[in-house]
Amino acid sequence: MPERLYLYDTTLRDGQQTQGVQFSVAEKMKIAKALDGLGIDHIEGGWPGANPTDSAFFDEMAPSCATMTAFGMTKRAGRSAENDDVLAAVLNANTPAVCLVGKTHDFHVETALGITLEENVENIRASVAHCVAQGRETLFDAEHFFDGYAANPDYALECLRAARDAGARWIVLCDTNGGTLPYGIGRVVRAVIEAGIPGDRLGIHTHNDTETAVAGSLAAVEAGARQIQGTLNGLGERCGNANLVSLIPTLLLKEPYAGRYETGVSRDALARITQVSRMLDDVLNRVPLKQLAYVGASAFAHKAGLHASAILKDPSTYEHVDPASVGNERFIPMSNQAGQSNLRRRLMEAGIEVAPGDPALARILDKVKARENEGYAYDTAQASFEMLARAELGQAAEFFEVKRYRVSVERRKNKYDRMVTLSEAVVVVKIDGEKKLSVSESMDETGSDRGPINALSKALGKDLGRYQEIIDDMHLVDFKVRITQGGTEAVTRVIIDSADGQGRRWSTVGVSPNIVDASFEALLDAVRWKLSRDAVALA
Amino acid sequence: MPERLYLYDTTLRDGQQTQGVQFSVAEKMKIAKALDGLGIDHIEGGWPGANPTDSAFFDEMAPSCATMTAFGMTKRAGRSAENDDVLAAVLNANTPAVCLVGKTHDFHVETALGITLEENVENIRASVAHCVAQGRETLFDAEHFFDGYAANPDYALECLRAARDAGARWIVLCDTNGGTLPYGIGRVVRAVIEAGIPGDRLGIHTHNDTETAVAGSLAAVEAGARQIQGTLNGLGERCGNANLVSLIPTLLLKEPYAGRYETGVSRDALARITQVSRMLDDVLNRVPLKQLAYVGASAFAHKAGLHASAILKDPSTYEHVDPASVGNERFIPMSNQAGQSNLRRRLMEAGIEVAPGDPALARILDKVKARENEGYAYDTAQASFEMLARAELGQAAEFFEVKRYRVSVERRKNKYDRMVTLSEAVVVVKIDGEKKLSVSESMDETGSDRGPINALSKALGKDLGRYQEIIDDMHLVDFKVRITQGGTEAVTRVIIDSADGQGRRWSTVGVSPNIVDASFEALLDAVRWKLSRDAVALA
Repeated sequence: MPERLYLYDTTLRDGQQTQGVQFSVAEKMKIAKALDGLGIDHIEGGWPGANPTDSAFFDEMAPSCATMTAFGMTKRAGRSAENDDVLAAVLNANTPAVCLVGKTHDFHVETALGITLEENVENIRASVAHCVAQGRETLFDAEHFFDGYAANPDYALECLRAARDAGARWIVLCDTNGGTLPYGIGRVVRAVIEAGIPGDRLGIHTHNDTETAVAGSLAAVEAGARQIQGTLNGLGERCGNANLVSLIPTLLLKEPYAGRYETGVSRDALARITQVSRMLDDVLNRVPLKQLAYVGASAFAHKAGLHASAILKDPSTYEHVDPASVGNERFIPMSNQAGQSNLRRRLMEAGIEVAPGDPALARILDKVKARENEGYAYDTAQASFEMLARAELGQAAEFFEVKRYRVSVERRKNKYDRMVTLSEAVVVVKIDGEKKLSVSESMDETGSDRGPINALSKALGKDLGRYQEIIDDMHLVDFKVRITQGGTEAVTRVIIDSADGQGRRWSTVGVSPNIVDASFEALLDAVRWKLSRDAVALA
Repeated sequence: MPERLYLYDTTLRDGQQTQGVQFSVAEKMKIAKALDGLGIDHIEGGWPGANPTDSAFFDEMAPSCATMTAFGMTKRAGRSAENDDVLAAVLNANTPAVCLVGKTHDFHVETALGITLEENVENIRASVAHCVAQGRETLFDAEHFFDGYAANPDYALECLRAARDAGARWIVLCDTNGGTLPYGIGRVVRAVIEAGIPGDRLGIHTHNDTETAVAGSLAAVEAGARQIQGTLNGLGERCGNANLVSLIPTLLLKEPYAGRYETGVSRDALARITQVSRMLDDVLNRVPLKQLAYVGASAFAHKAGLHASAILKDPSTYEHVDPASVGNERFIPMSNQAGQSNLRRRLMEAGIEVAPGDPALARILDKVKARENEGYAYDTAQASFEMLARAELGQAAEFFEVKRYRVSVERRKNKYDRMVTLSEAVVVVKIDGEKKLSVSESMDETGSDRGPINALSKALGKDLGRYQEIIDDMHLVDFKVRITQGGTEAVTRVIIDSADGQGRRWSTVGVSPNIVDASFEALLDAVRWKLSRDAVALA
């Protein structure tokens, strides 16, 4: 019988400590939903009371299979657990589980907290007991445990025993400053178990300051710990936390873990982990790292000629796991064969049938490659990919021609002496031989100006003659901008998500050194995609 | 007496297998020089004969302290080592050392090479013996050793013994497909030593396919191997090789390695490792990853308020090593997680002294929190944070007032019937009571239009009267845009990185529903920050 390992995600709390990361409530809900879908056991949502976003998240969070967990700290000295307002705010989030961080390193107790060692033990005991009495599953995060154990093992263990005896379900050994190497982690976890904290109540929380957080977590499991805390993509303070996106495939697929342990993550869910990893980058507006273990775009890329030819004979020669098992794909730059069958599959998904060996396939592949080199991203912008393919196949209708556009943004004082901004766009198109001029500004209902792209979008969608009624239910739902490398110089890549009244959602891409040009290109593709779907019925 | 560990760098060979990486000869020379300056023992320069760049590199390479090493493969079956032209090309590079890769996995010998197991052993023996006879230090890279040992340990060991008996100085166990976890690596290395290959002739070569390449290398050292192969920044095929930039500080600074082992890297050289890591990113034209262990810009960044206040009392509380030891710096960003102590620390770094308990601290914190809630991001945009704080403290000079601006983008056909885009901006400022109108377009030297933000930046920087000469050495180096939640609605956040002739680099932020407004706000902050630093001397 495999033993159960528990996975605890702290992307929404420790992950938010990453420099430059600040999740909105909506983003937290999106990430929590993805974690829940994976089969993570605990989702730590934030520290209620510490900032308004975290409190709002717990108020709005939908029910989940995962145990939603609020983070906080042990009560302060000189007041009871019942009267500690910080602790009360944590409990008021009404989550089934609560994780409290507390000190276990004598130096920190005396230097940072400035209280006696006995007071700190009592803070741990009373806080855990209070949460348990409120019916919550209670976790104790033993901050700086490894440094504390090195400095004063008796005291560090006394803190853990206080949490254990007060009823903590999990006692989590935290390598808070990331300085403990895997060998040391394994040794200390074994010592803790020998000292009377059972392994099935022990968790591990590592940081990547020596680039060994994943290995440190594995060493703790080998030594007997049964809960792993980590984050998606290794997000987290400084160098990040242990990366669950690397750990989960290792635990499910690799010796000696596969078979020996089981987690809440099914093989079906595992096949979505690449998608989950990229969703997080999307939320953060980051380019996914190609080199990421298991899920990176290069993780199964075989550049060396020797490797690529061996892969064709037997993939197991250079792949330690099947890329499909983690939802990733093999990539062989040299292999036109693999490229073409891949391409045909993508075209079929877009409803375009092309016979194997059709010379258009090679032309489309070349075009995609050339344009991706200029900065386009067709993986994301499926609708633009489809428009490109249709053009190569001679299946693209023009619908209308854009003759010119002009957009202006002006900021100045109004008659009340307040600075105001106004954007205005003019778009000139030719439809059925007729020239149509449209002008729009971009003031919204609150009187604030939404900017030049909004004005352009409105002007473009204002009068497309006989196509107008088809695009009337279309609207812009997201707009992403990235500076990227186009050949030798920096260009702007704009990705626009559009939606319509039929519930469809599609993405298009534009690239230019000029952000307005890039945006207009993506807007045009979006309108033409919609027309290519719906205008046929009218024609 | 500490034992000597040897470091072998393969950035120029295995690192070049990274998707998208192709070094020029000049780049290879630059990287080799940096490696040599660090005190690396062996520099593997490439595979002479396999491509023209690698051959040219060996021809042109300057003398080095490191042992320059040419990579190649064992001779093919059916010819003698003396008559193998591939092997001859490797020897013709005239390097003091040669590293030959050969098969040790029976499956690969029979499937990929299609020769008998005995022929393969003879290829290893004869090739190593030939190089040794030519007076070269010879290394044998045992490809797929860990998979081979798992499948057929006797055969895998027989291959190693052939290399040992033929006089190979180093026998390197390669985990070619990256699938072996640290625990497995340690176990196999111990078995190999017990089977008669001495540890001081054993090297380890790992890949990061499970995000454990660094830990795998350390496990091999703990088991007795004495050479580590890796690359700068973990460059390499698929997920990369073991990252020497993480391994070197760990070996020099961390228990149980520091003191027990010594390498060719001095403490002085270690203090340049951050610089070496960033030099490689510079060669690759990549933005350095902030989260890198030891050398990343976030490696010593302390965002959580609790951590920052402890750091002020004693840096060792949240730092496992001194950032200066690796040439990196502590950084305490502003964000809505932060407390007053964090804030004071941050202000001090900006040269602003505020007494503890000063009521301005609370006002600044409130303002930062409110603005971050609107979408601003002050932990990235330090210069904007500083301008905000100076304004609250009444220390902000106005310098000039912006009366209005206007920017337009027009796309239309030119006289040659080609679609072209032109951006134009007008900025009106008032300086010392005098109104100044400036107009700019944004055509670059190649004739392509760089867009409205570029035009605005040029117009704003065109005539600032007596401040003009101060901002003349300023330029825009990066521009990041994201759509974020500002209160209840989506807004655009723009972060601009600027640089000047004194080598300073600073970041500013602007937020608005209108991307042009947001950009202009960030541009203004950038100019004012520069003036607040340099204009005082003139006043």
